Amino acid sequence: MDALKPHAENRCFGGTVGFYKHTSQECGGEMRFAVYLPPQAQAGQKVPVLYYLSGLTCTEDTFLIKGGAQRLAAELGLMLVVPDTSPRQTGILKEDADWEVGTAAGFYLDATQAPWASRFRMYSYVTRELPELVGKHFPARMDREGIFGHSMGGHGALVCALRQPGRYRSVSAFAPISAPMRCPWGQKAFGTYLGPDAETWRAWDATELLRGGARVPPLLVDQGTQDKFLAEQLKPELLRAACEQAGQPLTLRSQDGYDHGYYFVSTFMADHLRHHAAALTA
Amino acid sequence: MDALKPHAENRCFGGTVGFYKHTSQECGGEMRFAVYLPPQAQAGQKVPVLYYLSGLTCTEDTFLIKGGAQRLAAELGLMLVVPDTSPRQTGILKEDADWEVGTAAGFYLDATQAPWASRFRMYSYVTRELPELVGKHFPARMDREGIFGHSMGGHGALVCALRQPGRYRSVSAFAPISAPMRCPWGQKAFGTYLGPDAETWRAWDATELLRGGARVPPLLVDQGTQDKFLAEQLKPELLRAACEQAGQPLTLRSQDGYDHGYYFVSTFMADHLRHHAAALTA
Repeated sequence: MDALKPHAENRCFGGTVGFYKHTSQECGGEMRFAVYLPPQAQAGQKVPVLYYLSGLTCTEDTFLIKGGAQRLAAELGLMLVVPDTSPRQTGILKEDADWEVGTAAGFYLDATQAPWASRFRMYSYVTRELPELVGKHFPARMDREGIFGHSMGGHGALVCALRQPGRYRSVSAFAPISAPMRCPWGQKAFGTYLGPDAETWRAWDATELLRGGARVPPLLVDQGTQDKFLAEQLKPELLRAACEQAGQPLTLRSQDGYDHGYYFVSTFMADHLRHHAAALTA
Repeated sequence: MDALKPHAENRCFGGTVGFYKHTSQECGGEMRFAVYLPPQAQAGQKVPVLYYLSGLTCTEDTFLIKGGAQRLAAELGLMLVVPDTSPRQTGILKEDADWEVGTAAGFYLDATQAPWASRFRMYSYVTRELPELVGKHFPARMDREGIFGHSMGGHGALVCALRQPGRYRSVSAFAPISAPMRCPWGQKAFGTYLGPDAETWRAWDATELLRGGARVPPLLVDQGTQDKFLAEQLKPELLRAACEQAGQPLTLRSQDGYDHGYYFVSTFMADHLRHHAAALTA
């Protein structure tokens, strides 16, 4: 593996935000991601790794610009790793035609259907290839990984963790797509990437994985009451029911008046970072 | 004056970010601005007003998305008021042709030259019309105003304050254009808006205003050492010299490794907000 050099780098809260491109095996082409290295890491210390999975239409820089996480990540000594939301410029016909599927809408699964299957392997990318890269090139404690995300990325964080029990020490989500099999966004994406047989969808749906016996560390989930996607797409009540049935610890907070965007996410960012740090730096 | 209603509103850190459009007398057409109302204001309390002037290419939402100020503004009880960086769609030929002059490059002065003079009156807009609007429509303590800004907006904050001694209780800047008469950005903008007679430029240059006897409350200025505009455009050493000569208190901090962008601005935002709160909420 060649040396990994950022194509852009900015000092931030005593650490560094770096932006990277590399050729991904899983995704069959260029992938981009961003890393925030806290000051502790730059002082030669190995630090825990917290992955953030972004929502529809976002890129690898959205979270670092809008999330307001670096201040506290610096204080807590957490590395933030933020992948892009899909491969781009894959040559797949109409990859950019619909904001809900294709470019910036990878849904953190491994597609099985043509023409997506060879490139849209975000699950394997996020859980295997990207961590290997991080472990190799950054001062990361790879025995201390946490994962969180927003909306489509909240779904992604829940599913990555539920499919790899014991792997992630901490998990949380902002306004996640809680039960993609039962909402239009998920049905469209799963139908496109996984095909019409809904039985194959269960392996990528957090509520179904919980029903199937998967368990993760205590979950923290925040949801705004004025989120325009709440009733139709997000359905946190289905996550709550699945967790209750499964005995999965869940703190689901309903945040009065907040919507779906980063003004909401940034407001509760500190609570999430402390939730992760409690598990990752203990 | 008609009721002022936001065209977009987002709950944020217990307060509200609101985006407004109105017909400006000074600028002869539509102007846009954003306001962060902290929780104290929503609880019926009048709060101090802190104006933030943005840099070249920014809009009224840049700072609220990237600056990371709302968290502490909520805690300190400060209202943030952020105007756009110029009038837009004025019909002036080539207003969008150059990022250094025209749209998003109003330089917070009152233009005297055709075709700009009728629309590009950002100084009067920021110091008179906008505050009147704020005082009328928001729970603002208009006897407690502070002002700060970034780059072109850092110049703007210094100049607004120096031209109105006694008006602003607190002033600070991130990487300001310290001596616009002596850098390419300023020379181009002043030549365009004020005409070729450089004598008329002095009234809009912080170092010249200091030389002319203007004084403001103790200044806080942060400047990154890796700022690519530092040597050619920003010239903080000229501000330092002018302050020293004038006996104007200045804390000028050189921040090692930081560049010109919002990763830099957000890192030192808390220090600036506390600087303002100390004067505004005392």
